[in-house]
Amino acid sequence: MSSSPLNVAIIGMGTVGSGVAKILLDRADQMTNRAGRPIHLKRAVVRDLSRPRNIELAEGVLTDDIDSVLNDDDIDVIIQLVGGIDPAYDIMLRALESGKDVVTANKALLCEKGESLYQRARELGRCICFEAAVAGGVPLIETVTQAMSANQITSIEAILNGTSNYILTQMFSHDVSYDDAVKSAQEIGYAEADPAMDVDGTDAAQKLGILVQLSLGIKVGLDEFLRQGIDTLSLADLKYASELGYTVKLLAVANLIDGQLEMHAQPTLIRNDNPLAHVEDAYNKIALEGDAVGKIWLSGMGAGQMATASAVVANLIDVAVGRAAITFPRLDLWNPRHDIKIMPREEISRRYFLRLNVEDRPHVLADITNVLGDHEISIASLVQHEAPEVDPNESFPIVPLVIMTHRTTEGRFQAASRELEQLDCIRAPFVRMPVND
Amino acid sequence: MSSSPLNVAIIGMGTVGSGVAKILLDRADQMTNRAGRPIHLKRAVVRDLSRPRNIELAEGVLTDDIDSVLNDDDIDVIIQLVGGIDPAYDIMLRALESGKDVVTANKALLCEKGESLYQRARELGRCICFEAAVAGGVPLIETVTQAMSANQITSIEAILNGTSNYILTQMFSHDVSYDDAVKSAQEIGYAEADPAMDVDGTDAAQKLGILVQLSLGIKVGLDEFLRQGIDTLSLADLKYASELGYTVKLLAVANLIDGQLEMHAQPTLIRNDNPLAHVEDAYNKIALEGDAVGKIWLSGMGAGQMATASAVVANLIDVAVGRAAITFPRLDLWNPRHDIKIMPREEISRRYFLRLNVEDRPHVLADITNVLGDHEISIASLVQHEAPEVDPNESFPIVPLVIMTHRTTEGRFQAASRELEQLDCIRAPFVRMPVND
Repeated sequence: MSSSPLNVAIIGMGTVGSGVAKILLDRADQMTNRAGRPIHLKRAVVRDLSRPRNIELAEGVLTDDIDSVLNDDDIDVIIQLVGGIDPAYDIMLRALESGKDVVTANKALLCEKGESLYQRARELGRCICFEAAVAGGVPLIETVTQAMSANQITSIEAILNGTSNYILTQMFSHDVSYDDAVKSAQEIGYAEADPAMDVDGTDAAQKLGILVQLSLGIKVGLDEFLRQGIDTLSLADLKYASELGYTVKLLAVANLIDGQLEMHAQPTLIRNDNPLAHVEDAYNKIALEGDAVGKIWLSGMGAGQMATASAVVANLIDVAVGRAAITFPRLDLWNPRHDIKIMPREEISRRYFLRLNVEDRPHVLADITNVLGDHEISIASLVQHEAPEVDPNESFPIVPLVIMTHRTTEGRFQAASRELEQLDCIRAPFVRMPVND
Repeated sequence: MSSSPLNVAIIGMGTVGSGVAKILLDRADQMTNRAGRPIHLKRAVVRDLSRPRNIELAEGVLTDDIDSVLNDDDIDVIIQLVGGIDPAYDIMLRALESGKDVVTANKALLCEKGESLYQRARELGRCICFEAAVAGGVPLIETVTQAMSANQITSIEAILNGTSNYILTQMFSHDVSYDDAVKSAQEIGYAEADPAMDVDGTDAAQKLGILVQLSLGIKVGLDEFLRQGIDTLSLADLKYASELGYTVKLLAVANLIDGQLEMHAQPTLIRNDNPLAHVEDAYNKIALEGDAVGKIWLSGMGAGQMATASAVVANLIDVAVGRAAITFPRLDLWNPRHDIKIMPREEISRRYFLRLNVEDRPHVLADITNVLGDHEISIASLVQHEAPEVDPNESFPIVPLVIMTHRTTEGRFQAASRELEQLDCIRAPFVRMPVND
């Protein structure tokens, strides 16, 4: 057992970086036991040295000189916690080139540039660990890459964006609008000042992309699959869904069906008897299906300081003991399933939820159902409540109409939607969501 | 990357053994990719060669000569699937002594004899892998030993016996008696002809013992903590619990509280808003709490041919790539928390559910509540329904009385129970269960 210390540098001392430092410093003995050697936090790189921090680091650890850290041959591992692509990509490449292993939580970077980074790391005999990049403290990457290694993963259905899940939970449980729920998420620290990447579905889609790459070895670009956020939903949608026995979640899905990969990340109606319907606040929940093990579910905090730091430090221990060096070069990344085709989005077959605001007058329902019928879409259920107060600018009362369709294809549904939008009797908003069942 | 094959022998070709062979034979290429070398099923040891099997093995693989397998220096790994202690213990020791790593699903053996086996394996530089021994296909051992390595695990609350969970689900969902539900479990293959170890709580307690040993490094014997099975429950208990907003599960619990370990495995009332209340049929579900990551939940099939085989083969790949050799000697087994004391069972503090059959006459309720009051137990809620038809052998109608207490200690509750059982007004059965909240 090697007892030489593992020298570590953290780049980016934000919330997660401070959490990692806290674990390494506060429980050094326990970490030494588990790693079989001391883990020594040698440097922590920040942009602004003068900013106050609520963690005490030894003299000389904090620096704003990233070059000195990347060039320091004594440093074995870089914990790369800078977000976005630029300069994170360069930092990571330089770390690898200078012989360091990298632990990161940056899912945007791995989703967009993972292929070249993984490739370079492998050529250099280094490894990249990223348990923290997807589902925070939930042991999802480890499960996909180790526990399920006797399986072909055939289905991933996952709630991967804690911010969106928190907002949806707030809206429904506290009867508040989307805007108020976003404000509350910002106050509690779950949403950034600009929460766009969370609420528009990008974050969930990036994480799904990483999971698909790990389980099938193929990269699917963000523009190659359906992606939609919760930012187009209103409280009314959640209430109608509930009335019908469903819960709305931002659901990322990858299903292997007859050699085709169905993939999308969208707000989705989930039946209340599906375990994925029951995950509240900023928690993540993931259903994985393997052809041997069947379905397994994992859940826990997908973000937050200590949950994410826990995943980062677990990876650090993987590096320290040598597990990472074994696991990384044998990921399914390197055994791509080129036989699998991405299912064209038009062919994806599901049921749909449709909320329309329509004029309350004769023929309207016939007009709408005729359009659906022309596209061979049949109606499974329909809810129309009485008209609220009448808008004086309208000749007729405007009433909400909620339709659940039977199974149809995305292509047919989109074509019907386009036609419906042209009807005189329909007012905005026009809300559509797929149903998972 | 080593490309020499890993030679494997399975001892015990029952349901799980056949499942393991099926994965190794049917998807040899995929396993080779993931293991970095071929995994070669060299021998499969059975007791009775003449028994028909629904798996086709190459000429010479099947044998009833266990010695030739244990003495075969070419065999690298033994998959030990013989249940019970004897001869499983000897087989495992001999396998280790002859230089083989061992993968096993035998939780009884690990719970009772784990210490000496682990010790011997470590002295010999070998490893023992046992993902399949606890919670079948759920990646629980891996999560406890790898993903949570930045944490002290502070709480384990788990549904670990699929047979009991199936029986409880059947009883409640199909309104059938305990005996009928056991019969149905036997028909579907979830329960043995003699299901004693499953339904009396032994199996769940053994698994809890393994988890505690892995997360705290201390061995707690089966006689050192409260253990109770579902075999004393009736449908009425599940219905009363439901009426009060709870679900009854066989729950294994280990909580670290101020340096003391509270530990028990008993049928327990779980509030319906707790995720552990929602796991049906033969599924397992586990809530783990770590001091960094917070709570995480895992669920999936805890038994069954392919789910268990999936865990066995994952371990086999861990051995093939060298991960097992790294992980095993660094388990927390080797860093025992001797500072932790087992909380005396009398001091465990919980709420309780109590179902009594009592005479329907004046003073009875006063007598009962006086006994509870004498032991400083106060009543949180009470349900008494009207008397069913009168038994002609009784002078008074006999009515069921259900009491939920406020929090009290096990010691007080047991003392009160003993006194209650002496009261003339009480008839059998006398059902008590703790409440988890």
